[in-house]
Amino acid sequence: MNVMFLGTGAGMPAKSRNVTSIALQLLEERKAVWLFDCGEATQHQILHTSIKPRRIEKIFITHMHGDHIYGLPGLLGSRSFQGGETLLTIYGPKGIKEFVEKTLLLSYTHIKYPLEIIEVADGIAFEDSQFRVAVKKLEHGVPCLGYRVVEKDTPGTLQVDKLRALDVPPGPIYQKLKQGNTVKLEDGRELNGEDFLGPHQEGRIVTILGDTRICEQSVELALNADLLIHEATFGHADDQLAFDYFHSTTSQAAKIALEANVKQLVITHISSRYQGEDSESLLNEAREIFINTDLANDFEKYEVHKQK
Amino acid sequence: MNVMFLGTGAGMPAKSRNVTSIALQLLEERKAVWLFDCGEATQHQILHTSIKPRRIEKIFITHMHGDHIYGLPGLLGSRSFQGGETLLTIYGPKGIKEFVEKTLLLSYTHIKYPLEIIEVADGIAFEDSQFRVAVKKLEHGVPCLGYRVVEKDTPGTLQVDKLRALDVPPGPIYQKLKQGNTVKLEDGRELNGEDFLGPHQEGRIVTILGDTRICEQSVELALNADLLIHEATFGHADDQLAFDYFHSTTSQAAKIALEANVKQLVITHISSRYQGEDSESLLNEAREIFINTDLANDFEKYEVHKQK
Ligand SMILES: [Zn+2]
Ligand SMILES: [Zn+2]
Repeated sequence: MNVMFLGTGAGMPAKSRNVTSIALQLLEERKAVWLFDCGEATQHQILHTSIKPRRIEKIFITHMHGDHIYGLPGLLGSRSFQGGETLLTIYGPKGIKEFVEKTLLLSYTHIKYPLEIIEVADGIAFEDSQFRVAVKKLEHGVPCLGYRVVEKDTPGTLQVDKLRALDVPPGPIYQKLKQGNTVKLEDGRELNGEDFLGPHQEGRIVTILGDTRICEQSVELALNADLLIHEATFGHADDQLAFDYFHSTTSQAAKIALEANVKQLVITHISSRYQGEDSESLLNEAREIFINTDLANDFEKYEVHKQK
Repeated sequence: MNVMFLGTGAGMPAKSRNVTSIALQLLEERKAVWLFDCGEATQHQILHTSIKPRRIEKIFITHMHGDHIYGLPGLLGSRSFQGGETLLTIYGPKGIKEFVEKTLLLSYTHIKYPLEIIEVADGIAFEDSQFRVAVKKLEHGVPCLGYRVVEKDTPGTLQVDKLRALDVPPGPIYQKLKQGNTVKLEDGRELNGEDFLGPHQEGRIVTILGDTRICEQSVELALNADLLIHEATFGHADDQLAFDYFHSTTSQAAKIALEANVKQLVITHISSRYQGEDSESLLNEAREIFINTDLANDFEKYEVHKQK
């Protein structure tokens, strides 16, 4: 599981940062890539990575501003053209369905795979045996969502070698032991399943937020996350601008990370007013409050490791 | 007057060629740039040129396929963000108005300059004292247009020095001479205006066609043009594919150029199946029929010179 930033800028593309898109790569977990937002030229950025459009299984849209959605119609068309045949599901706020359907219709684009578009607000956007994606409304002037991706815990595997060493014959009791039950063997021995299970593995949590002012919902979405991706459109000094334009500063993003007790914060959605060396001072502003912070650049990848 | 290719590929962006957009730069003529088509990431391509989005006065769309229009909403938004305040007019086939209005509305994009969208078919798309833009339907399976940009002839300027040398006093007769009339001076001399006019300058003609099969309308639009830009999605051998997909081959583009008696042909909209060295053989196929042919690459510029 890793996160690759395909675009880390705000508002408009610049030479150094494209507009927003983030790829959560779940190749080992489910041979899939989930995109979060899809600004213009996201498919162009993808050309410079190893991501295959046909592997994109889900696209989560945070809000309807152009710098987060204008790359969607092109990517959907190219995914079909490049042999994508499997279901693609798009999650997003009200309006996303009409946007996708209208743009494809008016451009005579016939995609060959099933496309599902689900408009979400607060609650659970998606859940299966492996992942649950919770969603909450943030504060951005227009409806804007944050997503909390929760990998489900995996129980420890049954240590078969250990059972064989004790001459426990394979059979239905293996299943009972695996579920952690205590069983009585025919020879009278009693075995506790817990003693024969490898370590239980906690699922990872990745929280990816849309554009927002500093707000309580962000803390809720990010609670104990392994990785929090939070916007920082402005530097610490520009907190009035951040408030006026419904954005956050570096320090505000760091405060959320601290309060939510996350392991790592990556700030992104950097305004083009900050160039080159400014990045370092932006990053330092955040690190003063939350030390384990990075500032994202296009094409940077962050691994999210399982806990030992 | 020059033409800069911002995207020369077909269907999907590739590393080497972006999807279609062509800038007709009229900086000396009217301090303006006219775009023809606006595929995704056209605004990104513009970042690597000297083109200022606020100088874009008109955008002519040939057809509604995504590789020709998906860059429009982003460019329109950025033009506003970057201080564009003057009227922008978009010309295009049926559907272009709904596409632009819907995408801007659904993305909460409020542009600060007046935007006019005119759906055109056959006839005159635009005319003022300087230029006339004629439009005709081509053959592409979906409604698709070709544009013929005609610069109006400029009459020769009055050679004032020559008149002064003959002691002809300035006054209303200068105006009459300028219009080519014969006038009688008070001292009895007769002067023919034609003798005092510099060379009359013929306007230039640039023809930019959308995707199309080889067709008669292309010849009509390109007749005697200084520059014809014609698609060549396929090589000579793939004429059946070209027909099936409503496109043209290199040779067909060259035939149109020959028949229309143009001065120069530039072929573009090259399928990504052709890579690197293929370009040379594609170009040679066209040159066998029409020698003054070039094959466009992204960011190449073609000057259109006035005739001497
Ligand atoms: Zn944004
Ligand atoms: Zn095309």
